[in-house]
Amino acid sequence: MPILVQKYGGSSVADVVRLKAVAQRIIQAKRSGYNVVAVVSAQGDTTDELITKAKEISQSPPKRELDMLLSTGEQISIALLAMAIAEEGHAVISLTGAQGGICTDSLYTRAKILRVDPARVKKELSEGRIVIVAGFQGINDMGDITTLGRGGSDTTAVALAAALEARACEIYTDVDGVYTADPRLVPTARKLDEISHGEMLELASLGAAILQPRAVELAAAWGVTIHVRSSFGEALGTLVKGDDQMEKQRVVSGVTRDLNVVKVMLVDVPDRPGVAHEIFSALAAEGINVDMIVQTTKQGPVTDLLFTICQDDYALTRQLIGELREKLGITNVLYNDRLAKVSIVGAGMMSNPGVAAAMFGTLAEHGINIEVISTSEIKVSCLIEACKVETAVKAIHDRFRLGEELHV
Amino acid sequence: MPILVQKYGGSSVADVVRLKAVAQRIIQAKRSGYNVVAVVSAQGDTTDELITKAKEISQSPPKRELDMLLSTGEQISIALLAMAIAEEGHAVISLTGAQGGICTDSLYTRAKILRVDPARVKKELSEGRIVIVAGFQGINDMGDITTLGRGGSDTTAVALAAALEARACEIYTDVDGVYTADPRLVPTARKLDEISHGEMLELASLGAAILQPRAVELAAAWGVTIHVRSSFGEALGTLVKGDDQMEKQRVVSGVTRDLNVVKVMLVDVPDRPGVAHEIFSALAAEGINVDMIVQTTKQGPVTDLLFTICQDDYALTRQLIGELREKLGITNVLYNDRLAKVSIVGAGMMSNPGVAAAMFGTLAEHGINIEVISTSEIKVSCLIEACKVETAVKAIHDRFRLGEELHV
Repeated sequence: MPILVQKYGGSSVADVVRLKAVAQRIIQAKRSGYNVVAVVSAQGDTTDELITKAKEISQSPPKRELDMLLSTGEQISIALLAMAIAEEGHAVISLTGAQGGICTDSLYTRAKILRVDPARVKKELSEGRIVIVAGFQGINDMGDITTLGRGGSDTTAVALAAALEARACEIYTDVDGVYTADPRLVPTARKLDEISHGEMLELASLGAAILQPRAVELAAAWGVTIHVRSSFGEALGTLVKGDDQMEKQRVVSGVTRDLNVVKVMLVDVPDRPGVAHEIFSALAAEGINVDMIVQTTKQGPVTDLLFTICQDDYALTRQLIGELREKLGITNVLYNDRLAKVSIVGAGMMSNPGVAAAMFGTLAEHGINIEVISTSEIKVSCLIEACKVETAVKAIHDRFRLGEELHV
Repeated sequence: MPILVQKYGGSSVADVVRLKAVAQRIIQAKRSGYNVVAVVSAQGDTTDELITKAKEISQSPPKRELDMLLSTGEQISIALLAMAIAEEGHAVISLTGAQGGICTDSLYTRAKILRVDPARVKKELSEGRIVIVAGFQGINDMGDITTLGRGGSDTTAVALAAALEARACEIYTDVDGVYTADPRLVPTARKLDEISHGEMLELASLGAAILQPRAVELAAAWGVTIHVRSSFGEALGTLVKGDDQMEKQRVVSGVTRDLNVVKVMLVDVPDRPGVAHEIFSALAAEGINVDMIVQTTKQGPVTDLLFTICQDDYALTRQLIGELREKLGITNVLYNDRLAKVSIVGAGMMSNPGVAAAMFGTLAEHGINIEVISTSEIKVSCLIEACKVETAVKAIHDRFRLGEELHV
């Protein structure tokens, strides 16, 4: 029997009614001839509640202990979901991340999956059981529990799909697919039937909170096709596939916004070799993702260094930069968290010059100033004032006629 | 440094304030020169809340999944307690039952500890850390999480104390020691400074809900001295020690009552070899503890078989006996759950004839009818009407002058 990996987010298993609905969906997949592996997140707000409990005791609890605490959230979900499936008379077993063979490094609260040992999962499947695996968590070489960071359950699902050579990896969310823009913002936004891993990766990184970027990266590396679909209906969603399977007619696939951004500006950084390395390696050591980086040349032996981080890392970044500032002799540090990033993504962009220019033009027409520009082969991002981001998204969506069906 | 094992129950870690108080107590023990291993239960009513969650989904959830669920309770406690200790600047690590090396059989929800592998605990202690271990849980040979049944945290603590050759095993509870009778019932009840393992085992089995019987059994087998004391003060409690350390002057050490009892009466059981075996092995296979067993001879080829079980096993026992009844041709089955067991316990009893007779006489004087009698070398138990148990306990306590200090 082919293997199907499904992933259900926290809102899909938030209460008994939803949990039972998910159980039915899993049973349905089993009945239609699949060996089913379901990856589940913690119920509803459980993770946040556990974090609150920890903060009552310590403002900065040891990360290892935080993972020990947080991993209970998924453990509760998998046990309850397994009970719901067993109650319907189907053979089922729940597995923690450790039991599911999710082996990670030891970067607690943000661990990376090193390898998946699917022996136990395969054994249970071969004995006819539905297998429920705790998302978001794994085990390191010391036998300690780790968590993969926000949205890590997607990564668990894709990693298992790759290790099990699953037919497909279905990610169930509260939206029914990937859109050309956020439908709450742009009424003409259109659901995409397909999108390439590369495009989805840019979209995921840029704030379309549907799939975790790391999960998409993993899917791209291992050639896993992800099916993003709604847990509240039967409709097909969006297939996230390898590039070779894609028609390249579409220049721009979607436009996204990201409000989770803080601009950090280091003023008068000594312009000598190794300084940038020292700054960014200090941030990397704490697992802080630095996004746009711009270095501007000045007169004299100094330079200005600008980069962006996400809001979650704001406090830690301030602390680290604070420690480095004196040591490196940086004159001044400016932070701005009232910015947003608007981006266009499209695999066809690299063969179509002028796309970036068209985006800049559209922003200019609407009187929106661009603070920072960052580009890759398949995306263009602009940092703008947060209060203007809705206008920007709508204008760009219209400009590239993303609401219209493509006629090849 | 000598090793000290401490165990804190669910009420001792029920909220942030108590959790911090426990952290202080552990740190104090560390400061006074011990390597401390603290075993912790789930916070307050957590376990009951988790059971309620499970029951919302299934009336009889798979036991393996129930253990997967319930074990999260202690995992939350250990993480939070470790955070509280770390917050005070002390090196600390929390370990699940599995990480703590608690290896059990696979009788889910009632697993027995097969062995303790203390390697990880020893390593952490040798690196100067306070070690917090989740009580009540372990891991079986398949790598699956098991739980030890109600009160299993005591067993975890004693097993660790034995494996680590700890100096002592302190069990912190909400009472300050072992009494000659329940002080809420008998105002003249006296706290015992010492009691033997054997006596404590009888007391524990007979409903003095201070220590889990299995924990006492384990302590007796491995020669672990248990110090039962209150988590809300500094007073010394009761030492539960090996028999050789004991003065044997006391004939009766205490009187207990147990309301958690159901009498099962099988009427007209075919009197052929193997029938009793079939009945009791069916109960044992489900982990049901059968207590008093009385078989009465009748005229003809049948016999009556009477035994008692605890209330928790009532439903399951009815089901099993129901299945066996037709098969074995038992005429009738009677249940009575309005009974109570009153018992006296004392290591000196075996060398003092007439103790049992004195107890029966006291009950008779108070017009209390005895339904069933059961004795061991160091205890006498009588099954009586539940509504008369308080009178019985007080009368027996007086009769043996347990409220008076012993003058050797």
